[in-house]
Amino acid sequence: MKARIHIHLKNGVLDPQGKAIETALHGLGFEDAGNVRQGKLIELDLKASDEAEAMKQAEEMCKKLLANPVMEQYRIELVA
Amino acid sequence: MKARIHIHLKNGVLDPQGKAIETALHGLGFEDAGNVRQGKLIELDLKASDEAEAMKQAEEMCKKLLANPVMEQYRIELVA
Repeated sequence: MKARIHIHLKNGVLDPQGKAIETALHGLGFEDAGNVRQGKLIELDLKASDEAEAMKQAEEMCKKLLANPVMEQYRIELVA
Repeated sequence: MKARIHIHLKNGVLDPQGKAIETALHGLGFEDAGNVRQGKLIELDLKASDEAEAMKQAEEMCKKLLANPVMEQYRIELVA
């Protein structure tokens, strides 16, 4: 089973990388782009018998390694 | 309208960051995690009258700035 983990900075946490992208987009003529935030996307294969088990594993990985719970929030999506 | 842009390395392109995450996961006891790939996730607000227009803008941003078409592929998702 494949898990796709989306990690972004929590709202309110300053995102300098997103800001840099926004400035670059404006410079290229995309003046309408706003509120740009950059996050991480991690895809991995899991060996799990069912969705609940896979979700539990992925959640544990996020807590232990992938996300920083102080500044980041994550969302797990399972792909068949 | 909000666009969510998922950018990953194309299949076959070596992903050392993903490999490092995989090794770390194995070290933490998640031996079943495999084929880990890390990508980027960019969220932004667009001013567009309809979905087709928003998609066109986002696509152009990817081509001009956000993704490297030689090594990366992207997927655009529009969120209402």
